[in-house]
Amino acid sequence: MNAKAYEKMMVGERAADFIEDGMIVGLGTGTTIAYMVQRLGKKIQEENLHITTVSTSSRTTKLAQSLNIPVFDLNEVKQVDLTIDGVDEFDKNFTGIKGGGGALLYEKVVAKASKRNIWIADSSKFVSKLGTFPLPIEILPFGHQHTMRQIEEIGLAPELRMIDETLFITDSGHYIVDCLTGPIEDAKSLSFRLNQIPGVVENGLFIGMTDEVLLAENNGVKILKK
Amino acid sequence: MNAKAYEKMMVGERAADFIEDGMIVGLGTGTTIAYMVQRLGKKIQEENLHITTVSTSSRTTKLAQSLNIPVFDLNEVKQVDLTIDGVDEFDKNFTGIKGGGGALLYEKVVAKASKRNIWIADSSKFVSKLGTFPLPIEILPFGHQHTMRQIEEIGLAPELRMIDETLFITDSGHYIVDCLTGPIEDAKSLSFRLNQIPGVVENGLFIGMTDEVLLAENNGVKILKK
Repeated sequence: MNAKAYEKMMVGERAADFIEDGMIVGLGTGTTIAYMVQRLGKKIQEENLHITTVSTSSRTTKLAQSLNIPVFDLNEVKQVDLTIDGVDEFDKNFTGIKGGGGALLYEKVVAKASKRNIWIADSSKFVSKLGTFPLPIEILPFGHQHTMRQIEEIGLAPELRMIDETLFITDSGHYIVDCLTGPIEDAKSLSFRLNQIPGVVENGLFIGMTDEVLLAENNGVKILKK
Repeated sequence: MNAKAYEKMMVGERAADFIEDGMIVGLGTGTTIAYMVQRLGKKIQEENLHITTVSTSSRTTKLAQSLNIPVFDLNEVKQVDLTIDGVDEFDKNFTGIKGGGGALLYEKVVAKASKRNIWIADSSKFVSKLGTFPLPIEILPFGHQHTMRQIEEIGLAPELRMIDETLFITDSGHYIVDCLTGPIEDAKSLSFRLNQIPGVVENGLFIGMTDEVLLAENNGVKILKK
């Protein structure tokens, strides 16, 4: 296991400690989250916990169910107590870019339905300025060429995400474009402008969504609070 | 035929006059548009025109194809020369509410891809203040209960659209909620706020999308320009 994978494992497993008996928990998506879900599966068994979860992707649902973690539809719960999710890049204001795993839309819906959100990250994810990780944007297949042109018009360089040689399709049937942005000076205004483009379903900028990040650092996990 | 249907027919047929040989035309959706499409079908035959169209709904596509009007996918054309669409309610600034027919998302995408947009309307659609017609909002099925709660939090009263006793599903697989808004004071700010809710795909406020409306009035058709 390389250093980065070790950090992901460390912070993923640590995050499971925040989950308590009786909670309704939102499960994020990604490689770091996979460690958290595996640890949660063990914890539920060892401590005989009653946990309800909702999932942000078909991938996470499959993993959770394979570990006998009960997964509910988001519409079946009134509110989510705690969501734990990964992040692709975040700054000191806890503004983040998410969507590397292609689940940004459901991740944002679940985050918004959650009382508390914790992000978990290896040390490479904490940046002084957002904009190195290409910003993922979820768009409609209908007229996507035109939508991409409108994204270009606001200064970004969108590339349709492919998996091998086929178009990546999200769990809700949309496409993802990954956009080179350069340094992002005003994330809020960028998010507003993107969401006003009719073919844009959602963008990967997460603003004001969390106050807590667990960050792997120097062989330990640091808890960052806003 | 009642007076309103007569107005729809009159303005729909008149709108077809704006379509010229060689154009790429966006076809809206709705009862008024159906008259326009029927007239266009005849016109193409009578005048031997070469017209390319793109459609905003499966309903309009079916109608156009039944009349031998060639319909292309929006991604197959570079730009739309002229889109003719209906509107459910509009004010003197040509801000409109659309989506009564459930096609607001594709309508907005096509409108945005068009060099010129003309709305056609019977006289009942021109209002002094927007907000009597319930505002349609297209939302994700995933977590829609939570999305509806967030729409309520900004002061609207969303109702899931049903057809008979089943949920209405849009051409892109989403739901529609119809929202009693009361008089809309600031359409732009409302549109921004709605589109920032993660489960909202698009809202039915059309702002700055057109400069021309054909309005049926007193047994004639008036051309309103901004």
